[in-house]
Amino acid sequence: MSDSIYTNYPPELNPAQKDFLVKTIKDWATQNGLMVRPPPTFISKESDPYGVLATNAPVTLFPSLFPRACFEEAKALQTVYNKLYAAITCNEEWLGKIMEDLIDVDDFISRLWKVHRSVKKGGGYVQNLSLGLYRSDYMAHAPTNANAPSLKQVEFNTISSSFGGLSSLVRKLHSELLTSPPGYPISYPSHPLFESNVPPENTAVETLSAGLAAAHSAYGPSKSTPALPTCILFVVQENERNIFDQLALSRQLTTVHKIPVFRLVSTEILDHTSIAGSNASRPLIYRPPHSPDTQFEVTTVYLRCFYAPTDYTSERDWEARTQLELSAAIKCPTVLNQLAGSKIIQQVLAETAGPDHLANFLADTDPATVARLRETFAPQYDLSSNGRGRELALNPETALNHVLKPQREGGGNNVYKSAIPDFLRSIPESEWKRWILMELIRPPAEAKNVALRSDGEVLSGKVIGELGIYGTILWDQSNGNVLQNEQGGWLMRTKAKDVNEGGVATGFSSLDSILLF
Amino acid sequence: MSDSIYTNYPPELNPAQKDFLVKTIKDWATQNGLMVRPPPTFISKESDPYGVLATNAPVTLFPSLFPRACFEEAKALQTVYNKLYAAITCNEEWLGKIMEDLIDVDDFISRLWKVHRSVKKGGGYVQNLSLGLYRSDYMAHAPTNANAPSLKQVEFNTISSSFGGLSSLVRKLHSELLTSPPGYPISYPSHPLFESNVPPENTAVETLSAGLAAAHSAYGPSKSTPALPTCILFVVQENERNIFDQLALSRQLTTVHKIPVFRLVSTEILDHTSIAGSNASRPLIYRPPHSPDTQFEVTTVYLRCFYAPTDYTSERDWEARTQLELSAAIKCPTVLNQLAGSKIIQQVLAETAGPDHLANFLADTDPATVARLRETFAPQYDLSSNGRGRELALNPETALNHVLKPQREGGGNNVYKSAIPDFLRSIPESEWKRWILMELIRPPAEAKNVALRSDGEVLSGKVIGELGIYGTILWDQSNGNVLQNEQGGWLMRTKAKDVNEGGVATGFSSLDSILLF
Repeated sequence: MSDSIYTNYPPELNPAQKDFLVKTIKDWATQNGLMVRPPPTFISKESDPYGVLATNAPVTLFPSLFPRACFEEAKALQTVYNKLYAAITCNEEWLGKIMEDLIDVDDFISRLWKVHRSVKKGGGYVQNLSLGLYRSDYMAHAPTNANAPSLKQVEFNTISSSFGGLSSLVRKLHSELLTSPPGYPISYPSHPLFESNVPPENTAVETLSAGLAAAHSAYGPSKSTPALPTCILFVVQENERNIFDQLALSRQLTTVHKIPVFRLVSTEILDHTSIAGSNASRPLIYRPPHSPDTQFEVTTVYLRCFYAPTDYTSERDWEARTQLELSAAIKCPTVLNQLAGSKIIQQVLAETAGPDHLANFLADTDPATVARLRETFAPQYDLSSNGRGRELALNPETALNHVLKPQREGGGNNVYKSAIPDFLRSIPESEWKRWILMELIRPPAEAKNVALRSDGEVLSGKVIGELGIYGTILWDQSNGNVLQNEQGGWLMRTKAKDVNEGGVATGFSSLDSILLF
Repeated sequence: MSDSIYTNYPPELNPAQKDFLVKTIKDWATQNGLMVRPPPTFISKESDPYGVLATNAPVTLFPSLFPRACFEEAKALQTVYNKLYAAITCNEEWLGKIMEDLIDVDDFISRLWKVHRSVKKGGGYVQNLSLGLYRSDYMAHAPTNANAPSLKQVEFNTISSSFGGLSSLVRKLHSELLTSPPGYPISYPSHPLFESNVPPENTAVETLSAGLAAAHSAYGPSKSTPALPTCILFVVQENERNIFDQLALSRQLTTVHKIPVFRLVSTEILDHTSIAGSNASRPLIYRPPHSPDTQFEVTTVYLRCFYAPTDYTSERDWEARTQLELSAAIKCPTVLNQLAGSKIIQQVLAETAGPDHLANFLADTDPATVARLRETFAPQYDLSSNGRGRELALNPETALNHVLKPQREGGGNNVYKSAIPDFLRSIPESEWKRWILMELIRPPAEAKNVALRSDGEVLSGKVIGELGIYGTILWDQSNGNVLQNEQGGWLMRTKAKDVNEGGVATGFSSLDSILLF
């Protein structure tokens, strides 16, 4: 399929059209909670000592184009991906072998693995159920105009998969702009792709909340004597700027599922939760600081923190993470499931030499589906020893077609193309195994959009879009039985092209939605 | 009834409870659009050059207590009040006599009256239908503890009756706090008045929007040749901080009633609207600046501006107001209906000597109901000549029981109690007739609440609460026929006591909701 569909999209905006769209989007965002707390670079603590101000989430003015076939394929594969990562998490031996290889070069992985080991030693896990709220991120790979774009996975997130709440709102925003005013849509300049076309339904909030609700319900009755009321606990970062994304899920849990939800900052876990020492089933007890006489038993711990080394500010935070892991609460995710999301796992699965791990983990899935899933892998290489990976990385010419990523999940520390050889040579060879070399995915070269940043600046230019698909799975870690496995909802994130390849501060990274073609 | 119910309300908050409530309310407000743009005293234009920031509307932490009987009476009387103000507006001769008396002392009333006169001279009105979106404001009057509180009217608003949108949200906020988490409500400290008690339903958004929709539909088909699509036009102030209150109505009109709504800043009326000179029915044509080739015919002009002298920055704004008035669009309100909302009208209606204007205007309403409506009037006096009013105002002892209000609608320039005699003596006697003397309403003395301001400061203390009831009426100005007359929705506004009686900057004026008792 030709790339040319991107050439004339989005339509040009004259100043009056741009003003109208920007103003409408700014106001809509505030009216509908498509918001973030402003970054300190925009508003200092001094200007807003009580932290009341909020601003629009960064958002594109137009939905971006995305190939329908790729979107459908990503949705179709999500429950298979869910199952795959549950199966990996269940194979503690296989996972442990990979992790133990990294312990000497990666402190963070080493600490996480230690948490798992210490639970094993301290009487083992008392909760077999494990909950995954995942997001699989892709690009449409279109290296040439000659072929239809294909779906390539960027990464798979097993912890704190974010933006489900805000993404649903961006879909609503763009849909309303496409159809307003009712009967005479003129909010956007006219464009053939806008005719009877709105972004597909986005059930991210419903799907992710239903996953948490399923875990809450599967936990069963209180394990305390006397029985306590139960709740879900969102464990969060202090001063979370993306809080309104998270609150979309708690609102759904509270209003639709009627489940009590509390938020607890990670540094306060040990202040307000405890495990009754005398109770062998180790229920996790939460005492809300504003009502310390009321005790709740936590059925499900939903982590929206603890995914990055910076989330652990002291030994006490590691102790807190261990307490959660030791408890009877269902973790979303467990330490093991978090580790399964490391980039190294993605690379091992993609290896074409050696044992076929993917087929092994998906032994009960039909091979054609496994093959389709494998098709979403971009070629990627480990750099631990001499071989194809090192060759491609150190050769300035082949490096141009690659990106170097830390094997931990997270993103943001990538090294691109021509910078790769020099970067590798600047660090000790013993640390090379911390990095994964991945062939660059080539999204449509002509894609463009306009973005409204959180500080109000409007920028336009060529962009790279990343589509995330949400999935949830609840399984029994002791036998691999899957209790619930769902897909639903999506995220489009759009970055200015230069940002993706160099992190230029004048660029943008925005929430977006999609128009299928 | 004893005032003592207020003594132990609201419950005391310890620091952890207060922190929890403030944080929860701040976040809830942002998630749900209970927002305002920050005032320049809080955030300068410099810190937010693009005007993207928003903050919570000022809001009380608790719903305030309000006597159920007073609330029910206010609701029961709203459609009678609607009818009364429509009838006053229809009696141009009666209204004109009062207004012409003020022309020499009040520039603003004089200018408004001139707009009406110039339409009369310029071929007369082409639109007989008139729409009122009203709010009648009351206090519970409880001068002693011995008697049940009675309902007393503070003022009646016929233009830009605001806060319907945000008020519905405050009701939702307080209701959620009262019942959360589901099944185990502990967001508030426990209090007997919280048991199975939530604020009454608040349909302000639905009612006000339905009023606008009724006018839109009553306008009928386009009067242009060829026919144009029709729309409702919100005419607004530049840099409106309370925009999210207004957007709650446009969202309802767009999503539920499927009516195109546009916003137009008052200074741009003449740039983007016109009346086709060749068309005797004078349809008002709106050309959206972002799509100037598209023309809409305006069925209904909803004014959220033009209520204060400062809204007219030049002769051009008066010209614009005149153009709207001349056009076929249904005005909400007309100049005449706006003038009917002047405080002087309220005072004339309340006069106990002379003709019974109230009974005359409500000739077809049963006398018992008229008597109940009259019961809501606080004693008030005109100061145009020697008499009871001047006596009460100039005597330092009786002045203590009164407030002096400009006879124009608006509020904010009141003179209270001991300040009255000196104030009057400081202005020429010829200007006294610009003022109305009103007996002070005595709200429950022990009422207290805690407020979260827009800048994040939390203040608590004794308060005065003002209840507004919304009503809408659509009538034919040529014959007084009423096409639709509805009541629905309410507003509770709560002020720190010192603010009300002196305008101290450290106080607060907050949106609130009510618990009936």
